[in-house]
Amino acid sequence: MSQNIGESIRTMASDARQAARKVATLSTDTKNRMLLSTADALMDNRKSLQDANRKDLDRASEKGLSPAFIDRLALSDKVIDSMAGGLREVAALPDPVGESTGMWKRPNGLVVGRVRIPLGVIGMIYESRPNVTIDAAGLCLKAGNAVILKGGSDAISSNLALASILQDVLAEYNVPGAAVQVVPHTDRSAVTELLACEEDIDLIIPRGGEGLIRFVVENSRIPVLKHYKGVCHVYVDEGADLKMATEICFNSKVQRPGVCNAMEGMLVHSGVADEFLPMAGKRLTEAGVEIRGCDRTCAILHDAVKATDSDWGEEFLSLVLAVRVVDSMDEAMDYIARYGSNHTEVIVTGDYARSRRFLNEVDASLVMVNASTRFNDGGQLGLGAEIGISTSKLHAYGPMGLEELTTTKFVGFGDGQTRT
Amino acid sequence: MSQNIGESIRTMASDARQAARKVATLSTDTKNRMLLSTADALMDNRKSLQDANRKDLDRASEKGLSPAFIDRLALSDKVIDSMAGGLREVAALPDPVGESTGMWKRPNGLVVGRVRIPLGVIGMIYESRPNVTIDAAGLCLKAGNAVILKGGSDAISSNLALASILQDVLAEYNVPGAAVQVVPHTDRSAVTELLACEEDIDLIIPRGGEGLIRFVVENSRIPVLKHYKGVCHVYVDEGADLKMATEICFNSKVQRPGVCNAMEGMLVHSGVADEFLPMAGKRLTEAGVEIRGCDRTCAILHDAVKATDSDWGEEFLSLVLAVRVVDSMDEAMDYIARYGSNHTEVIVTGDYARSRRFLNEVDASLVMVNASTRFNDGGQLGLGAEIGISTSKLHAYGPMGLEELTTTKFVGFGDGQTRT
Repeated sequence: MSQNIGESIRTMASDARQAARKVATLSTDTKNRMLLSTADALMDNRKSLQDANRKDLDRASEKGLSPAFIDRLALSDKVIDSMAGGLREVAALPDPVGESTGMWKRPNGLVVGRVRIPLGVIGMIYESRPNVTIDAAGLCLKAGNAVILKGGSDAISSNLALASILQDVLAEYNVPGAAVQVVPHTDRSAVTELLACEEDIDLIIPRGGEGLIRFVVENSRIPVLKHYKGVCHVYVDEGADLKMATEICFNSKVQRPGVCNAMEGMLVHSGVADEFLPMAGKRLTEAGVEIRGCDRTCAILHDAVKATDSDWGEEFLSLVLAVRVVDSMDEAMDYIARYGSNHTEVIVTGDYARSRRFLNEVDASLVMVNASTRFNDGGQLGLGAEIGISTSKLHAYGPMGLEELTTTKFVGFGDGQTRT
Repeated sequence: MSQNIGESIRTMASDARQAARKVATLSTDTKNRMLLSTADALMDNRKSLQDANRKDLDRASEKGLSPAFIDRLALSDKVIDSMAGGLREVAALPDPVGESTGMWKRPNGLVVGRVRIPLGVIGMIYESRPNVTIDAAGLCLKAGNAVILKGGSDAISSNLALASILQDVLAEYNVPGAAVQVVPHTDRSAVTELLACEEDIDLIIPRGGEGLIRFVVENSRIPVLKHYKGVCHVYVDEGADLKMATEICFNSKVQRPGVCNAMEGMLVHSGVADEFLPMAGKRLTEAGVEIRGCDRTCAILHDAVKATDSDWGEEFLSLVLAVRVVDSMDEAMDYIARYGSNHTEVIVTGDYARSRRFLNEVDASLVMVNASTRFNDGGQLGLGAEIGISTSKLHAYGPMGLEELTTTKFVGFGDGQTRT
């Protein structure tokens, strides 16, 4: 069986490589019409999608999976509308393929430039949400790529139903079905086999918990774009507007605590701690936030719990916040270098020179002055839709939109030039 | 012993991570002065470098290594001059760090942009040429990175002598010595240990034979930029200027046959084969090129050897050339997709529409019309110096100059924005 899975995956990958040559040359207009047709087809097939989804939901209930898990699995009317809406948004975005990022003339008259091209074949590996199947297929197609989608085994019926809709649209536009393939195997070996297809897959994007992502990184010979976690900080500087700082910290922590761009640690300059901590502490505590503080924090905020070593750098993903008082911005930046995850780091300050140093010296995919950590998101930053966030630096650092699903090649226009 | 090597390498990597924070903030002026000081120091220490190099050369002779190998190992006056000259050229190049690649305003007033930053810590793994130690150190430093250099065991005395010069310059400018480190261990386990330091090294660049590169790719958890080989083609189209085509093919094959951007396969449209093959064949054969042709080629060129299956897609790296007659550009492009290595592909044509299709549809790091394959080189394309060529698409596709040793982060300038 496992051998059959291996063969099946290798065939999917080499078929995808063939199909990618065709997808790369589709016109922007054709790609956009395919996305809009898919959106319409989701609407038209709502009932059959929900029937297929019902099988997954029933199986999940029988297995006693958590309500939160089952919620993520459900293709509710709202989720289907949102998938269709997402496709329409991607259709409206500019097509990055074919753009030149620069062209110049060499002394010998050769004109050389860089032109944006699709990456080729992308492998998505994800967990329970079936909407990722449509979101990822839409973004990959728009950027001119073929894609292989390996969703969670609990969503297999839903994913296969979505795949069937996608296949009908591809056929309607005379595009090879291998341009978008859903892996039909639920065995974990299908993931391992996929990660070994280095000749035919150009990029792997895993989406899910840290366990899945580490498994993918450790087993892949194909480049992987990912982030393990988001441990984001807000540093409240001496002389900051403390009302603004309170609002930014409150929004960063409370607006949606379970996501990777929520604040997990708050650093407060000792010069403003006596005034700021009670203000911010009240606001946060009233919203149900548990504060785990250093000794100096606890001396000011009597409700705070004393932090343990493991609280520094912890990704709580809940209404828990680590708070530390520091004596300088350098101490805050050292803390961030040690405990941050290169995701999102914010300074709230009124000082120009320190804003410059923080922006220059802090190493994170998004570094900001006087704004909420929650803005680290492709849509919020103006990239359009995003396929994920990268906290490793190669190729993409931060939210990955359409442009990050492409690369550039060099082109040259000669008149017979040879090298001497 | 092996455990000690592991500890030693891990310490080097974590020291490099620390040092990288400092290197990232050096001013352009300081970096340039360091490069110029290193160039001067190479000149001043010519004698002691050559004494150290003599030990490597003597060991190589005793081991009976080939004259070509010994030639690559030698720090001749010319090689030392060339290292110093290379550093001066890199000092003269613009500093990519801090450039913004775009900035825009969101509807909520938040100003967001991308700013170019160093990658962090780069690991170079290479074989016998000790000049790579200086070339790579210069490029990595200029781009604001720390670098760990693991050269071949046969060049260890030379590399340690070069390291000592680099250390003196770093100390003179008050930069931590861990900014540029030469691995002192000659055991292969040092490479494996280096490839496991995923927390502290951001990128691995291997330079050397296909065996070394495959070993690195298979053992690394760190992203790797590399090319395995260069199987480059020239396609001579129907209606091409055949005199131009002859010069381009001659230059592509003969000017330097042992390098990755030399032509290994020539594809000729059947409509011009009768006229072109005798012209080009004569020119190539007179220069000592052995032609391995398809049946149709051999029917025209009676000196040609009949090609075997393994000749298609072979990287000869010598005066051997595979030649095939094709009936259309589509057949040529299918051949290139099957046998090419995504390195450099050239069409010689007089037809506008076919030049457009070839440029758009051929997937290689450099695709050109009417010019020699030999131009795929950072210097020739105008990037300044290059640290290598990438034929995988992520992050860099083609020659890698200073810009490819950097990435971009997002920065945001807010006035208290929060997310609703």
